[in-house]
Amino acid sequence: MERTIREAILTRALRAGVRLPASRTLAQQLGVSRGVVSDAFRQLEAQGFLIGRNREAPVIAAVQSPRLTRTELEATALAARYNLSPTRPDVSLFPLTRWLAAAQRVTRRRGPSILDYGEPRGERVLRAALADHLGRTRGVIADPAEIVIVQGTAQSVDLLMRVLRGRGATRVATEDPSQTTARERIRAAGLTVVPQPVDSQGLVVDALDADAVLVTPAHQFPTGCVLTGERRRQLIAWASATRGLIIEDDYDSDFRYDREPVRSLQGLAPEHVAMIGTVSKTLAPALRLGWLVVPASLVDQAEDTKRLLDHFSPAIDQATLAEMLINGDYDRHVRRARGVYRVRRDRLLTALAEHLPELGVEGIAAGLHLVLRLPPEADDIAIADHARSAGINVAALSAFRVVPGEGGLVIGYGRLADEDIEMAIRELAHVVRPNL
Amino acid sequence: MERTIREAILTRALRAGVRLPASRTLAQQLGVSRGVVSDAFRQLEAQGFLIGRNREAPVIAAVQSPRLTRTELEATALAARYNLSPTRPDVSLFPLTRWLAAAQRVTRRRGPSILDYGEPRGERVLRAALADHLGRTRGVIADPAEIVIVQGTAQSVDLLMRVLRGRGATRVATEDPSQTTARERIRAAGLTVVPQPVDSQGLVVDALDADAVLVTPAHQFPTGCVLTGERRRQLIAWASATRGLIIEDDYDSDFRYDREPVRSLQGLAPEHVAMIGTVSKTLAPALRLGWLVVPASLVDQAEDTKRLLDHFSPAIDQATLAEMLINGDYDRHVRRARGVYRVRRDRLLTALAEHLPELGVEGIAAGLHLVLRLPPEADDIAIADHARSAGINVAALSAFRVVPGEGGLVIGYGRLADEDIEMAIRELAHVVRPNL
Repeated sequence: MERTIREAILTRALRAGVRLPASRTLAQQLGVSRGVVSDAFRQLEAQGFLIGRNREAPVIAAVQSPRLTRTELEATALAARYNLSPTRPDVSLFPLTRWLAAAQRVTRRRGPSILDYGEPRGERVLRAALADHLGRTRGVIADPAEIVIVQGTAQSVDLLMRVLRGRGATRVATEDPSQTTARERIRAAGLTVVPQPVDSQGLVVDALDADAVLVTPAHQFPTGCVLTGERRRQLIAWASATRGLIIEDDYDSDFRYDREPVRSLQGLAPEHVAMIGTVSKTLAPALRLGWLVVPASLVDQAEDTKRLLDHFSPAIDQATLAEMLINGDYDRHVRRARGVYRVRRDRLLTALAEHLPELGVEGIAAGLHLVLRLPPEADDIAIADHARSAGINVAALSAFRVVPGEGGLVIGYGRLADEDIEMAIRELAHVVRPNL
Repeated sequence: MERTIREAILTRALRAGVRLPASRTLAQQLGVSRGVVSDAFRQLEAQGFLIGRNREAPVIAAVQSPRLTRTELEATALAARYNLSPTRPDVSLFPLTRWLAAAQRVTRRRGPSILDYGEPRGERVLRAALADHLGRTRGVIADPAEIVIVQGTAQSVDLLMRVLRGRGATRVATEDPSQTTARERIRAAGLTVVPQPVDSQGLVVDALDADAVLVTPAHQFPTGCVLTGERRRQLIAWASATRGLIIEDDYDSDFRYDREPVRSLQGLAPEHVAMIGTVSKTLAPALRLGWLVVPASLVDQAEDTKRLLDHFSPAIDQATLAEMLINGDYDRHVRRARGVYRVRRDRLLTALAEHLPELGVEGIAAGLHLVLRLPPEADDIAIADHARSAGINVAALSAFRVVPGEGGLVIGYGRLADEDIEMAIRELAHVVRPNL
């Protein structure tokens, strides 16, 4: 109990000044002896978490200084005045009221059955709504039975790696540069990562030699280019010829600012493509909701693997997302967020043109990040480190590479308040320019 | 769109008699041409899902016959008049209103930060509340940093198998009989299952030869016995001598009806025990919320593995569970459910004594199931099949065995309405007796 109260104070669940129940009352409520409660109160007073007043119930003290886990320490180390992280959406845009209202509606409508053991593949209503939504917005061709609901992109990659290993695959190609976490997941599954270069047309398909390839055709992470039509055709030809699997991470496809996003590879070759999607960028990372559209030949293995991993994904959240897809709240939210991010990107471009006009910017008008090119002799890792020391959280392009190549700064604008953009870039310029 | 509407009808999200918006209105709302909507309406009318009335907007028809996936077909095949499944709780007891209210409170209190990328180990406030709760109710000795929040028992087992494999383990012992799904997960991780016999004192520790052992000390599944004190000492001595890991699935520990549950093994030897817990039985399976208490020496590997698996578990649910643990709603709910299940177990025993008095019943007064012993010559698998054909869903003890042994029927009472118990057992007796 001592620990619960302490943690509640540290996480601000119990706020300073709040009076706890008297030890006798609390003891009754918790079904423990009064001595246990009194002991806990005394300990917490000794530790400075409670303020005791002889016979009155204690009051929560104003405290700081939590004991932190490793990850929390890392997060604290990364805390910055300006967060230019390239993969973080603005969670304050999340339509919380609508989400909670939808959850309430679906649970009441569905009744207790939604609380029971569910299907490994996911809630039928969500798979159906996604088949429709992805068909309409991404040109995806999929029966709801070919969709598996998962806990976000991380689980999609992990799940596919297990399926591939089970089929005897040994080599999985990734774009270079690309997200480092996907490479970790490939290796953790006992598979070999084959780095494949990216140029201005996206993944280089020539000389691709692997059992599967993980690509981000809609918006390459981190370079920001789009896989061209020619490359798409080459990639599908590769899959047809080698029976290799194309894993399409449909990264950032909902946020294209200048035109309609390029349609999915999956729609061009459903039998060769497994497509990965998530609401982490469009709604919120904490929902842990994503989907995997698999070729018909992999459906049963994908379902079996999902069942082995964690049986099925939380059902209320699935039904809630389905409700928002069906009633249009999801589309409305994405449109609104797209408008917000478009403005931030424009402001960022203006600020870069003013404060770092000598450096080129790359990346299409899409997503939550762009790349600021640096001269060949500049050390982007060192510059990003300097920036972090100065309170500006920004990523180096080289940090995403396996084979060394051109450097740059990957600048995210998802998390940056409109009014901070100009100041953040002005300060970034002070860090960057002396290091060029 | 056609598909979304059809699925919404099949899942009763759109109920019979509801009128859809006019095609023009719907087309505007969805941002598609009116022709697309009219086409979808026509298709759905042709398929019998909508009733069109020349120029009026169509009305939802009363339909049945969904296309089903493999799992749905299996579930349908299992649909029974009497569900005596041994692992299913009564989800209609779930405190839905309190759960949703708690979710609303925590999201408002925590603000957008709860929607962001979270810690792989889980929400700090939940780990703290669990450390307290498990310490109080189960004698668990754990720092919140030694708890990892997971997607239920399935993920706990999968996660631990990956950690063990990473440490070079090859052999994992399981109780025989035990849940078949755990054995599948062990094998899927590339490890060998070592079946270890269970007698009336629980797992037989003699001759245990493995890198880890998965046990259900509080309430063995499916035999229903408790691991005795002597066996607990033997098991801990085994772990100390061999450095083997004890994996304690704290199965059913919240539902003991005759006395306080035996405290956890973990509290006796925290450095040798990884303990698995879940809310699937106490709250609802669909929440997919569980925890893993690991020895300090495994914490970092467990956290890294959780990050590789799915980054972290959904945060709002975690904070909601923490809220219910802290404010006492969780304990109140468990007490209430315990009372309901105790009554059902008593009724079940009365009905068995009346209709099958010649057969012995085994299993302590705990959990959601008991075992009806059959004579040695009886074929429990065949009897369970007969029962299912007669609409009574009941499991054969032999179905949980690796090495053949005594047969029996594993009868669950979690899902059976009080008033159905007598009739279910009367009908079960009609099936069982001719086969003895």
